Amino acid sequence: MNQDKEAFSHHISQQFNEELEEIRTLMLEMGGLVEMQVNDAIVALIEGDAKLAELVREKDDAINQMERKIDQECMRILARRQPAASDLRLVISISKIIVDLERIGDEASKIARRAQYLVEEGQAPRGYVECRHIGYHVRKMVQDALDAFARFDSDQAFAVAREDKVVDQEYKTAMREMVTYMMEDPRSITRVLNILWVLRSLERVGDHARNVAEHVIYLVKGTDVRHLGLKNMEEQLKKD
Amino acid sequence: MNQDKEAFSHHISQQFNEELEEIRTLMLEMGGLVEMQVNDAIVALIEGDAKLAELVREKDDAINQMERKIDQECMRILARRQPAASDLRLVISISKIIVDLERIGDEASKIARRAQYLVEEGQAPRGYVECRHIGYHVRKMVQDALDAFARFDSDQAFAVAREDKVVDQEYKTAMREMVTYMMEDPRSITRVLNILWVLRSLERVGDHARNVAEHVIYLVKGTDVRHLGLKNMEEQLKKD
Repeated sequence: MNQDKEAFSHHISQQFNEELEEIRTLMLEMGGLVEMQVNDAIVALIEGDAKLAELVREKDDAINQMERKIDQECMRILARRQPAASDLRLVISISKIIVDLERIGDEASKIARRAQYLVEEGQAPRGYVECRHIGYHVRKMVQDALDAFARFDSDQAFAVAREDKVVDQEYKTAMREMVTYMMEDPRSITRVLNILWVLRSLERVGDHARNVAEHVIYLVKGTDVRHLGLKNMEEQLKKD
Repeated sequence: MNQDKEAFSHHISQQFNEELEEIRTLMLEMGGLVEMQVNDAIVALIEGDAKLAELVREKDDAINQMERKIDQECMRILARRQPAASDLRLVISISKIIVDLERIGDEASKIARRAQYLVEEGQAPRGYVECRHIGYHVRKMVQDALDAFARFDSDQAFAVAREDKVVDQEYKTAMREMVTYMMEDPRSITRVLNILWVLRSLERVGDHARNVAEHVIYLVKGTDVRHLGLKNMEEQLKKD
């Protein structure tokens, strides 16, 4: 009897394990797609590749549908399995991370739209270097946040949160330069504005990467570090 | 509708009922605060009231802390009560809605910052009428989305989603005007840029109000209508 029972519960938990593994894998897959979208959007912008930009915009819906699908799976697990402790944290973290991933996808799509405008209206006279620099920076943040998730690494997640401060600074500097340039050459305003929106989108990608990192810290440590500020966050992490 | 509402209030455990009621109340309270923040930020901008703008920025942290608190309550309910069906949907909807409410709070805070810049740098020559108009529009959307939540009214929620399209159009028109103005009077660029960022923030508030409305539809109907587009969303709603 006992053996039967054990076998039964083992079977159940085996299947439950597989379900958890499935949403983890799906989420990482979605993350990989989103990261590629950010990358492609920047390449499309810098190389003035309208076709690639169009591809990025077309792929956005696939990402939206992944969010729906993963969310559905999370709800099913919550309803059927009623997970507790770390399993519950995993499901909830995933359901939160996919919201940020979907928004990163949106920003990539917006960048791609601006890349198309710049092909139509003619190149902006400045700003590509800044977009490339910040673009690769935030893309790396997305990658590192996903990596931290895959490896349950709260230190790496904290490093991503710290990077966001650097990006904010780079963003402000780039914005100031662009505004100065617009004043010097008002004929370039519409084109430089496209760069401004791209920079803004990239800064938002950095914010979302930080959010993902905070969800990873919650997953690993069980501590909600949102809205704490870096210093308090670090202290909180040392405590645990 | 009344039947839906009744279904939500029948519970074996009186205490469980009270817990659900508590997070509902807290969420609506947070929503009321956020709505006031949007309102005050617009008033601060239009009346050039730097003190009010400062107040809005100071209050932002209270909203952040409410998000943390409500989320904690949601997690506790999920872990202890293992809710199912409509109760689970209620908890999940609330945990999603508060993310959007917190972001609306962020946007209000950003608008307040721009209001302060405009006091420091001198009024923008244009754009206040547009900000007031769109501002009250999106504030109404937030209010209606919260109202739809309070009354379990999916029709009202759908109306909010539809309003977002109107706001997007108003936003685009206002942006075009501002850009034209910047080109005509390049000395006003930095000041008009502040207005541009305010318009952008307001448009984002509209997006988040739409998100809240979509969560309300999910709560009431059990259907995930995100990323469907208005037409499909309407068809989906008729089906149920």
